[in-house]
Amino acid sequence: RLKTKLQLYMSNEKQCWFASSRFVEPMPLKLSPVALGSSFLPNSSLQFGAGARKLHAEGNGPKSSPAAAPDRLPFSRVTQEDLAFFKKILPGRTITDPDLLESSNVDWLKSVKGSSEVMLRPQTTEDVSQILSYCNSRNLAVNPQGGNTGLTGGSVPVYDEIILSTALMNKILAFDSISGILTCQAGCVLENLSLYLEKRDHIMPLDLGAKGSCQIGGNVATNAGGLRLLRYGSLHGTVLGLEVVLADGRVLDCLTTLRKDNTGYDLKQLFIGSEGTLGVITAVSILCPRRPTSVNVVFLGCETFEQLLKTFQLCRGMLGEILSAFEFLDSECMRLLNTHLRLPNPISDCPFYVVIETSGSDPSHDGEKLHNFLEEAMACSLVNDGTVATEETKIKALWSMRERVTEALTHDGFTYKYDISLPVERIYQLVTDMRERLGDRAKSVVGYGHIGDGNLHLNITSPAKDPALLAAIEPFVYEWTASCQGSISAEHGLGLKKRNYIYYSKNPQTVALMGNIKAMLDPKGILNPYKTLPDNLK
Amino acid sequence: RLKTKLQLYMSNEKQCWFASSRFVEPMPLKLSPVALGSSFLPNSSLQFGAGARKLHAEGNGPKSSPAAAPDRLPFSRVTQEDLAFFKKILPGRTITDPDLLESSNVDWLKSVKGSSEVMLRPQTTEDVSQILSYCNSRNLAVNPQGGNTGLTGGSVPVYDEIILSTALMNKILAFDSISGILTCQAGCVLENLSLYLEKRDHIMPLDLGAKGSCQIGGNVATNAGGLRLLRYGSLHGTVLGLEVVLADGRVLDCLTTLRKDNTGYDLKQLFIGSEGTLGVITAVSILCPRRPTSVNVVFLGCETFEQLLKTFQLCRGMLGEILSAFEFLDSECMRLLNTHLRLPNPISDCPFYVVIETSGSDPSHDGEKLHNFLEEAMACSLVNDGTVATEETKIKALWSMRERVTEALTHDGFTYKYDISLPVERIYQLVTDMRERLGDRAKSVVGYGHIGDGNLHLNITSPAKDPALLAAIEPFVYEWTASCQGSISAEHGLGLKKRNYIYYSKNPQTVALMGNIKAMLDPKGILNPYKTLPDNLK
Repeated sequence: RLKTKLQLYMSNEKQCWFASSRFVEPMPLKLSPVALGSSFLPNSSLQFGAGARKLHAEGNGPKSSPAAAPDRLPFSRVTQEDLAFFKKILPGRTITDPDLLESSNVDWLKSVKGSSEVMLRPQTTEDVSQILSYCNSRNLAVNPQGGNTGLTGGSVPVYDEIILSTALMNKILAFDSISGILTCQAGCVLENLSLYLEKRDHIMPLDLGAKGSCQIGGNVATNAGGLRLLRYGSLHGTVLGLEVVLADGRVLDCLTTLRKDNTGYDLKQLFIGSEGTLGVITAVSILCPRRPTSVNVVFLGCETFEQLLKTFQLCRGMLGEILSAFEFLDSECMRLLNTHLRLPNPISDCPFYVVIETSGSDPSHDGEKLHNFLEEAMACSLVNDGTVATEETKIKALWSMRERVTEALTHDGFTYKYDISLPVERIYQLVTDMRERLGDRAKSVVGYGHIGDGNLHLNITSPAKDPALLAAIEPFVYEWTASCQGSISAEHGLGLKKRNYIYYSKNPQTVALMGNIKAMLDPKGILNPYKTLPDNLK
Repeated sequence: RLKTKLQLYMSNEKQCWFASSRFVEPMPLKLSPVALGSSFLPNSSLQFGAGARKLHAEGNGPKSSPAAAPDRLPFSRVTQEDLAFFKKILPGRTITDPDLLESSNVDWLKSVKGSSEVMLRPQTTEDVSQILSYCNSRNLAVNPQGGNTGLTGGSVPVYDEIILSTALMNKILAFDSISGILTCQAGCVLENLSLYLEKRDHIMPLDLGAKGSCQIGGNVATNAGGLRLLRYGSLHGTVLGLEVVLADGRVLDCLTTLRKDNTGYDLKQLFIGSEGTLGVITAVSILCPRRPTSVNVVFLGCETFEQLLKTFQLCRGMLGEILSAFEFLDSECMRLLNTHLRLPNPISDCPFYVVIETSGSDPSHDGEKLHNFLEEAMACSLVNDGTVATEETKIKALWSMRERVTEALTHDGFTYKYDISLPVERIYQLVTDMRERLGDRAKSVVGYGHIGDGNLHLNITSPAKDPALLAAIEPFVYEWTASCQGSISAEHGLGLKKRNYIYYSKNPQTVALMGNIKAMLDPKGILNPYKTLPDNLK
């Protein structure tokens, strides 16, 4: 029975795509804390700031876990004189209203909560330069913040750091349709850039679930990976230029719009993935691919992970240059999508699901390649069931099965999130091993992610925060990853929560050199303190 | 008449490619100085070392030009004790024979000549570590050398720097055919890696004319661009890991083989394009694309540069994901190929020639896309003539029209070479302006390069070195480039010859930060001195 749908699809005319109509309308995924309601899991977050200081004093605060913040560093505290200065240079854009500050003090997962009392909203690079110059001279710590969609606590203050929001730096500066190079301010929301480019026959080289909230500056600062990396590569390759304000207010202008420039060291690379700890990115130029004229999405079910891997190999060979994504989720993810978001399974139940996307310039060629691939996948019994979409609404609906897993998890309970790079053939073993290890202690143990990039998202939930469960997960998960020479943070970064685990993926020599670079660029350490680098450094 | 060939091709069956048979067999391009004979243009090279010191003393030496080397820095000179140490750790691999050293003391263009008296040939990372640790403690300068195919004098000693050759570090360490990730020592020759991968159904993500001699370590150290950048992106995206020995002998192990790893700063990026001035790259891991099953090359002629640009735009739209190169040469390049290398023009004479390559996974789809594109290009009168190749020998022959321009130039006289990035629509204006400006003073003024990357190779020849001609070219060419926010070195790097022109493409703030990084990683400045960074820095 299971093969019927695919066979039905394949017996149709090449152009007449079979697409399931069983989907609910895709909901826009808004990743701001406000959208999820502030009552979500308030008791399970790491508490710092005023409350945390009390905990510290009692000796049982965040220090007990390597993920927790160290004591507040001896930065100055914001005075009335400081506020007067900020209000003078940023009239109407110096926010001190606690209600307005609340959503910027807590991350999207509600797992980290700071106690900042001031948020600055610069509009220009000059504004940012003035702010940092002042803060550096006054020894005031600064938390640069984009869309605040990060998952490792890197985007919110830990104590009373001044929040420097790039939200008002949202101007598109230039787009060259011949070269496909876009230049814009750091605060542009990814989805807005995508919409702007679509009208101009191009697309952004990156796409991620948080696109409706995340900002390009934050994407670059965290070296966001996402759904198109398989095809268009990492931001280290697609970002052509950056403008960065250094800790002391100096503006580092590397905002070139050239595909090639070998005049000295490529300094902008340092800031890609540095999570705002080395400088504040104020503008970005990025190489954008042509908009594909033909996009297809296939949702397939596999019986085993081995079959899924074989499907991937077949796919790489037969879809070749039109393959733009190869994502997976397991049956546990499907259960959460069904239960918490009422998203029905578009195909029959299988242990593993695959989302394959093709993007190309010729619908009939792409259709033929896809047809041949599916025929071969069925002939080899690699897939059990599947459905194909070529129309935009259906494509979005199929994609939401993959993109909304993160959201479904937030409804399942307190979530322990791991974002792991592994050799692709080892990816699912970690989920299986973890499931076996935790048994009934965990509510759900789910695996999904980017097969094409060797990137697993392992998520474990429990009804509430559970130190015993955490102790069963960590450091096991990191040791397991290190034993395969994997990365303990493939694309989420280290932020606050993972910073002390860096040694599982980087040797001390390398981490020490990172410390030297931090000391060189931000000698007072005012930029996003307590993030990225481990506490025991120097 | 001119359209006949294309029409003939297009009237054939889709699979039955028309391909000209007018080519001579392609000659392997060997880029070692020895291969070209050491008598080539000996009088026109910059002379340093013993001879140069004499010139310095007379006050009219290399210091007169910003391209020339500054005085020798106060490094130690190699003693008998030093040689004894090297011979002990590198028995049989410590070269002091002047005949053997000669070809490593001079660059391929014969434009820079050092006077090193010792070349070390390590086989392992540990060898390199011991060498640098020793040299750093003894204050001995070191010139890391790969295939010595660089064009800006970065790959040879300027005075008596010890040559550290990576030629014997030529082991392939691992290849994972599932992920396409290759790990190898730095001294592997690019062409050997390509051959190795071809047998395993993959290709290197970069290709360049010097492939028969250049080494992957040198490619990475100079951030080589080449012929596939349009499709597969820069080395900043495709290099996944590096092992680097720092100036003091410490081994920095960033040799991961993961597509994604966001655990701290991406330090390896610093060394990509740093021309051996920050560390010696000893091993590389790199992401390799699948070998395309269908490759076609088209050689077209255009009447104007505007038509050439329109052809490029049409090509991007209609060939889409299978476009893998869009290169150009002008009629002056063709004249040099005819005259000096006896390569006949495969089509009728035109002012501009284009080499378009497609790489895909389905010969019939690719053929159809190409067919449609050529039909449209003819219908719009964008091209005057053309020929198509799908068979390997013919493909190589067509490619050699583009790849061997550099070689043809060396036979035309003393060559002034410029490697410029510009907005694509401005690219040829610089050639036209230069031709007009120089008039009869230049023997040839030719333009060729990578249209798809906005990268022009502007070359000017004269019968012999001509200071008056040089004064007419520079700084005009740099000022012209800077006025368009271009790069004065798109892919060749700065090396010795362009280091002092860095400010035309980078602001002082940025260059100063480069200096800080150099000082941090190589405080004694022993690594490839006189290269990349300008003389007036600190």
